[in-house]
Amino acid sequence: MQILIINGPNLNFLGRREPHIYGSDTLESIQQRLLDEWTPAGVNLDFFQSNHEGALVDRIQEAWGKADGIVINPGAYTHTSVALRDVFASVEIPTIEVHISNIHKRESFRHTSYCAPVVLGQIVGLGINGYSLAVRALIEYLQNQKQERG
Amino acid sequence: MQILIINGPNLNFLGRREPHIYGSDTLESIQQRLLDEWTPAGVNLDFFQSNHEGALVDRIQEAWGKADGIVINPGAYTHTSVALRDVFASVEIPTIEVHISNIHKRESFRHTSYCAPVVLGQIVGLGINGYSLAVRALIEYLQNQKQERG
Amino acid sequence: MQILIINGPNLNFLGRREPHIYGSDTLESIQQRLLDEWTPAGVNLDFFQSNHEGALVDRIQEAWGKADGIVINPGAYTHTSVALRDVFASVEIPTIEVHISNIHKRESFRHTSYCAPVVLGQIVGLGINGYSLAVRALIEYLQNQKQERG
Amino acid sequence: MQILIINGPNLNFLGRREPHIYGSDTLESIQQRLLDEWTPAGVNLDFFQSNHEGALVDRIQEAWGKADGIVINPGAYTHTSVALRDVFASVEIPTIEVHISNIHKRESFRHTSYCAPVVLGQIVGLGINGYSLAVRALIEYLQNQKQERG
Amino acid sequence: MQILIINGPNLNFLGRREPHIYGSDTLESIQQRLLDEWTPAGVNLDFFQSNHEGALVDRIQEAWGKADGIVINPGAYTHTSVALRDVFASVEIPTIEVHISNIHKRESFRHTSYCAPVVLGQIVGLGINGYSLAVRALIEYLQNQKQERG
Amino acid sequence: MQILIINGPNLNFLGRREPHIYGSDTLESIQQRLLDEWTPAGVNLDFFQSNHEGALVDRIQEAWGKADGIVINPGAYTHTSVALRDVFASVEIPTIEVHISNIHKRESFRHTSYCAPVVLGQIVGLGINGYSLAVRALIEYLQNQKQERG
Amino acid sequence: MQILIINGPNLNFLGRREPHIYGSDTLESIQQRLLDEWTPAGVNLDFFQSNHEGALVDRIQEAWGKADGIVINPGAYTHTSVALRDVFASVEIPTIEVHISNIHKRESFRHTSYCAPVVLGQIVGLGINGYSLAVRALIEYLQNQKQERG
Amino acid sequence: MQILIINGPNLNFLGRREPHIYGSDTLESIQQRLLDEWTPAGVNLDFFQSNHEGALVDRIQEAWGKADGIVINPGAYTHTSVALRDVFASVEIPTIEVHISNIHKRESFRHTSYCAPVVLGQIVGLGINGYSLAVRALIEYLQNQKQERG
Amino acid sequence: MQILIINGPNLNFLGRREPHIYGSDTLESIQQRLLDEWTPAGVNLDFFQSNHEGALVDRIQEAWGKADGIVINPGAYTHTSVALRDVFASVEIPTIEVHISNIHKRESFRHTSYCAPVVLGQIVGLGINGYSLAVRALIEYLQNQKQERG
Amino acid sequence: MQILIINGPNLNFLGRREPHIYGSDTLESIQQRLLDEWTPAGVNLDFFQSNHEGALVDRIQEAWGKADGIVINPGAYTHTSVALRDVFASVEIPTIEVHISNIHKRESFRHTSYCAPVVLGQIVGLGINGYSLAVRALIEYLQNQKQERG
Amino acid sequence: MQILIINGPNLNFLGRREPHIYGSDTLESIQQRLLDEWTPAGVNLDFFQSNHEGALVDRIQEAWGKADGIVINPGAYTHTSVALRDVFASVEIPTIEVHISNIHKRESFRHTSYCAPVVLGQIVGLGINGYSLAVRALIEYLQNQKQERG
Amino acid sequence: MQILIINGPNLNFLGRREPHIYGSDTLESIQQRLLDEWTPAGVNLDFFQSNHEGALVDRIQEAWGKADGIVINPGAYTHTSVALRDVFASVEIPTIEVHISNIHKRESFRHTSYCAPVVLGQIVGLGINGYSLAVRALIEYLQNQKQERG
Repeated sequence: MQILIINGPNLNFLGRREPHIYGSDTLESIQQRLLDEWTPAGVNLDFFQSNHEGALVDRIQEAWGKADGIVINPGAYTHTSVALRDVFASVEIPTIEVHISNIHKRESFRHTSYCAPVVLGQIVGLGINGYSLAVRALIEYLQNQKQERG
Repeated sequence: MQILIINGPNLNFLGRREPHIYGSDTLESIQQRLLDEWTPAGVNLDFFQSNHEGALVDRIQEAWGKADGIVINPGAYTHTSVALRDVFASVEIPTIEVHISNIHKRESFRHTSYCAPVVLGQIVGLGINGYSLAVRALIEYLQNQKQERG
Repeated sequence: MQILIINGPNLNFLGRREPHIYGSDTLESIQQRLLDEWTPAGVNLDFFQSNHEGALVDRIQEAWGKADGIVINPGAYTHTSVALRDVFASVEIPTIEVHISNIHKRESFRHTSYCAPVVLGQIVGLGINGYSLAVRALIEYLQNQKQERG
Repeated sequence: MQILIINGPNLNFLGRREPHIYGSDTLESIQQRLLDEWTPAGVNLDFFQSNHEGALVDRIQEAWGKADGIVINPGAYTHTSVALRDVFASVEIPTIEVHISNIHKRESFRHTSYCAPVVLGQIVGLGINGYSLAVRALIEYLQNQKQERG
Repeated sequence: MQILIINGPNLNFLGRREPHIYGSDTLESIQQRLLDEWTPAGVNLDFFQSNHEGALVDRIQEAWGKADGIVINPGAYTHTSVALRDVFASVEIPTIEVHISNIHKRESFRHTSYCAPVVLGQIVGLGINGYSLAVRALIEYLQNQKQERG
Repeated sequence: MQILIINGPNLNFLGRREPHIYGSDTLESIQQRLLDEWTPAGVNLDFFQSNHEGALVDRIQEAWGKADGIVINPGAYTHTSVALRDVFASVEIPTIEVHISNIHKRESFRHTSYCAPVVLGQIVGLGINGYSLAVRALIEYLQNQKQERG
Repeated sequence: MQILIINGPNLNFLGRREPHIYGSDTLESIQQRLLDEWTPAGVNLDFFQSNHEGALVDRIQEAWGKADGIVINPGAYTHTSVALRDVFASVEIPTIEVHISNIHKRESFRHTSYCAPVVLGQIVGLGINGYSLAVRALIEYLQNQKQERG
Repeated sequence: MQILIINGPNLNFLGRREPHIYGSDTLESIQQRLLDEWTPAGVNLDFFQSNHEGALVDRIQEAWGKADGIVINPGAYTHTSVALRDVFASVEIPTIEVHISNIHKRESFRHTSYCAPVVLGQIVGLGINGYSLAVRALIEYLQNQKQERG
Repeated sequence: MQILIINGPNLNFLGRREPHIYGSDTLESIQQRLLDEWTPAGVNLDFFQSNHEGALVDRIQEAWGKADGIVINPGAYTHTSVALRDVFASVEIPTIEVHISNIHKRESFRHTSYCAPVVLGQIVGLGINGYSLAVRALIEYLQNQKQERG
Repeated sequence: MQILIINGPNLNFLGRREPHIYGSDTLESIQQRLLDEWTPAGVNLDFFQSNHEGALVDRIQEAWGKADGIVINPGAYTHTSVALRDVFASVEIPTIEVHISNIHKRESFRHTSYCAPVVLGQIVGLGINGYSLAVRALIEYLQNQKQERG
Repeated sequence: MQILIINGPNLNFLGRREPHIYGSDTLESIQQRLLDEWTPAGVNLDFFQSNHEGALVDRIQEAWGKADGIVINPGAYTHTSVALRDVFASVEIPTIEVHISNIHKRESFRHTSYCAPVVLGQIVGLGINGYSLAVRALIEYLQNQKQERG
Repeated sequence: MQILIINGPNLNFLGRREPHIYGSDTLESIQQRLLDEWTPAGVNLDFFQSNHEGALVDRIQEAWGKADGIVINPGAYTHTSVALRDVFASVEIPTIEVHISNIHKRESFRHTSYCAPVVLGQIVGLGINGYSLAVRALIEYLQNQKQERG
């Protein structure tokens, strides 16, 4: 099982940026923890981070036909990128959107997501644990799908 | 560890109601599955469902000082109940809001939640698995809190 | 043929309440008039009134599999209750929404109905005669349905 | 008793137009059915259909002092014509607005009616039976008025 | 000097229609009074009334190259007709918009006028005297224009 | 003189709930203080609290013909309940709405009240003293009314 | 007959200010022209201009019981002053609002007037001639009122 | 192949009207140019222009079962006519909407079209060449349809 | 104890102005009644009224370091004056806003107050008694503050 | 003649992506078809596609002084990119915006285009034929311009 | 060179008012510092502060033909005064608007300025240094203008 | 002292692009002038321009711990980029936003800035001099900060 973990703009600054909102873990430590948790379970994780909207779109297109699922924290592009919404509608890879902080507690422009209506679901406000829960949810979803088809 | 699982209006009709949106599991089978999964792990689950906004508020007040965490699917009251928002702000029990369907794919009035800004986080669109993920997230959150305190 | 007539909050005060808007008939006299008109025609009428949103939802759930049709005047809940909307979407019993006064002549928040888009239709502003017209419309609708299927 | 039945733009295409919304009856067959039902009851029905907003206004002005009541399905002009609203406010003939389909299930611009606040009431979503119910409601309203005066 | 006086929908009902808003003068008596006042002053007045938006547009197009000025009370089309706005922008005849009642005291949809921004000016709420004031204003405007050019 | 003091949802949690907003008095101590202040003055006070919108409506209907005045803190239902608004319009008992905290300093959805336009007046942000001021205001209002009639 | 002509902020700069919008007449020359026109007709004109909202309110209060009519160009306060609206509602002197330029051709915030709904009427876009037309309209209105009463 | 070219209100004034927006060609010269271009290609063109909304609806209904395609410039009715939208939904003739000027450069009310969502497509801002491009697009569309079916 | 009672624009017209809204007491009689009630209790009252926004701001600045509390009825400036809001935020004198009429029953622009979020609280709709209640509330508030500090 | 054909994000996925909306042609086949059609006519076509907003801006800047015209399908950036709008305003190369699908039939955020008001025109909903029509329109436009200049 | 420095309402309270927002400098010390800085450079500075909107308008009118430039901090009138906007449009003296605090970090009604669109520019959030920067910018602007004119 | 000067999309076209809005200086000449002015004063200036949102974010992240201050003209991304806002909130380097033209005179979408609420301040409409004023303001701000700490 191949799962792609994507992080959008400024998430490479995790641990440095606004620790009262995002906590003190760095992106690297989060990724390591996910590897430690899921590699033994036979899940292949791929990581990608970029501050470029276009690079995120490129990377998701590349995943087409390769990844079984995507976990994405689109960061600021959650609220402004129709291009990301379109690429999810296009590749049709089961995807879960994750937000570390509770976006509904923050500025009103963070309450809406262009991606949410075209992905499977959303995990919001559960800290960095949200990534792990999303991987778990994807695996269970994919196993269910397999059973139903199979 | 004591966790209260609350379901709002019409969720007692799960399995009968709009199966193309909510699937065919009944509330009873969901609750049984949660018991099977979490009782062995030493987690006590309590269940409550009501179609009455006031009864939901009453039940959450009763949980004050007793439950360690709450998982709630407020159903229709998500979008209309300030009373529910206030009771969460009042009891200050760590709470996760769950929606079986992806509310962002549905009518626009379902895109906003009065509760979301005062609870820990939200799990949206991951089917009935959302309840189980929420219990897991609560446990990990509560263990973290304990460690931090000490 | 089994038809349930439901009245929402404050409609038990009909005849006492704002007579320049609602006229001087009481709910009891309206119900008696409906019985006088429809019992001879072999139609069983059941009545329910409550000021509780949850009680209205409970009663409609109970009607599931029993009532052939519902006539409802949701009163104030017309404009605020997503829970009522959801129960109608859930039970799928042919339902007609009735308003005694012409809600389009009143405050702007009374111009929208959460229920209207999920029920069969609406009768507005025709006074207490609206209930009788709704019963008639339901009967003709149900007979049509039967013919088409039959 | 003299009742005028008016149909607005495109309703002369009933039976041909979007049958999944409006059914397969033609305007002619609807009018014939109304004649069959109400002529024996001593009700004179007059019919008028036009695609021209101005012609509808002209016809309603002509009815002034002649018709006892009007049943109108203003079609598209429901949502755009202040001129129709004004003519109803002007002639003060008891009028009921009918919509064959449930306009609250359709595009949001169809949810508002310029006429509704100045007519007696509205019958929505009850199919072509709506016309017959409206005639019945008008007759009962006019008889009530007579009794009250008389 | 050739001035065209145009009245829109329902203004042929003046004197009959909502006298508490519009007073009891008929359109005929208003027109006669204008003739009595302005014919001796050497002003030719032409009158036109229609309930048809298209007929109003047609009539204004015909005035092109013939009328020196237009006084129009567009009635209900004030608030809904872009076609009227366009014909005024097109013919470029100095035009004054008149409203008998004070539209700013009435429903909010009557507070805006599609025509107002493309005509010379507006006279609102001064009763039927508004027509006479508008004719006077037009004459003075045209004389000024002549002087400036001449 | 008979005055009914009603408290809406979560106000039974006063003293426990968000003390930085509502202070540390409990509902019981507030009620005792009101009794101490007004019983000697010959004013009968009745108390009611519920988290149920319907129960609040029921209780106000019961007061019809019995209570001379009502003081209500509708809590969260202030902002969401048309049913409460309707019952006040219905029973026509002089009523004053009280809010302990200054609702205009809080979330924007707390700035509007469905009840305010149908009650006598509002006392906002004056702490628990607001209840006492409201009782005093009611008494003075009722005495004025009596004098005017008498 | 006593008529007060009031001009609001910046109208003392007429002739200097934005001549492409307001023309080159000064306030003094406009006032002189009004005197020349109306003094022979036995009309007493009083003039007042201020840049102070409060001074305009003071002056209108002073006119109470003295002036038979008011012509006001409230300038910028048209769009921002509730105090002016209230003083007109308070003194109940027949008043006509004048705007030299066509405010509907300008910024959208100039399209609404707090005063318009509480005065007799509005004359917009007819240049400085608007003042003269307003005086004439007032005189005719006052004579009509007198006849009706008398 | 039978194609109907319809022009809405004021387009009969092309060449005279606002030449800085619409250019100096008249409707007649445009129609002649289309005939010159498409008659040799075996395409029958029919032309219709009216300032009457109802007449445009009538003409489109007449085309039902006769025309293979429609090119329409609805002029001002683009932004105000639901009746036109409905007739296109009704007759289901492939239709292309043309605007000579770039409506997105003009007043904001011209940026929306009631027709656009129910026709094939839109050509905006390409001058009178838009008509010719629309005819070409229709022909290619109809040939494609034929091939796919055939 | 020094309390300043401020009244905004047009409140000097109380008793003359719109008596159906504000009653027949004059500002002078209200002030006398307050003196009669509070002077014996050892409370010094100072009065100020102005129609000038700037004068109200000046007067409140002067009160800085002198008045213990302010009661203000800002009249029309309630809804339009940020300058008043700023001066309250600046002087930090405990202040209560009073409205004689129930502003929530009136035009929608009267439903919002720039001052309300920066003052202690609001008393609305309780007639001229509102001033007296506000003085009482201020005194009790100041005594409480003293006790807490003291 | 040098024409640049630009495609925005996800259009490299044409043929794979949502075929019910965009059809089954790939971007490569579309480009080949355009070459086949326009190279014989002596038109040089250049192609560019990118998922990067910045890369699209860069490419259009490079075209400055080189390309005679641009055909662009900005994809998702249509609705979110002010940077694209600005580059078109900057380079002033005649440009036509193309959308394969009818954006007015889709989500409301797709109904507005930042680019549309600064380009020549728009072709919407005519499938991949839209590109060819746009090239044709550009050529005719450029030839007209040339003739006019002379 | 003559420059007028104007401060609006409550800025005379600088140093006393909300020091966490505005710092602890008083208006007098700010003005002294500006004199110290710019008098040696041969720049004449004039100062004016008022809490009265009208007085600010008066003072700016007086500056007409005298001042070479204006620096204004309109305080609360930034957001509510069309009269100030109009006087700037009228006198056409180069003007720079200064705000000490970053208004974009504060309440949303402070994010818009009626003056900004008619003055040269705005300096926001740079503390009291903003005044000095504005004087410098004005001088450089005026010198540039002089050079260009020649 | 190390200051980074960043320019967003299309600002590399300065001097070529819309000279009536932005003047005729090129970005290179602006940067040279800043070097000439500030290098002698011991200020190190670094320059960066990109049309790519992601590249701007990357560059600001690189400045973290290196630059003492940032001057940014985000161009079009001012109005659309949450990613830029987030990077400023993240790196916490004192930053001033500069706009050459007065954005408040232009399209309404240019009136809001995602960055403004998270940076120090804004300089708007003062031409290319804005960059120099911003550098000066930053230096003075940094020296102040040093003194306060020091």
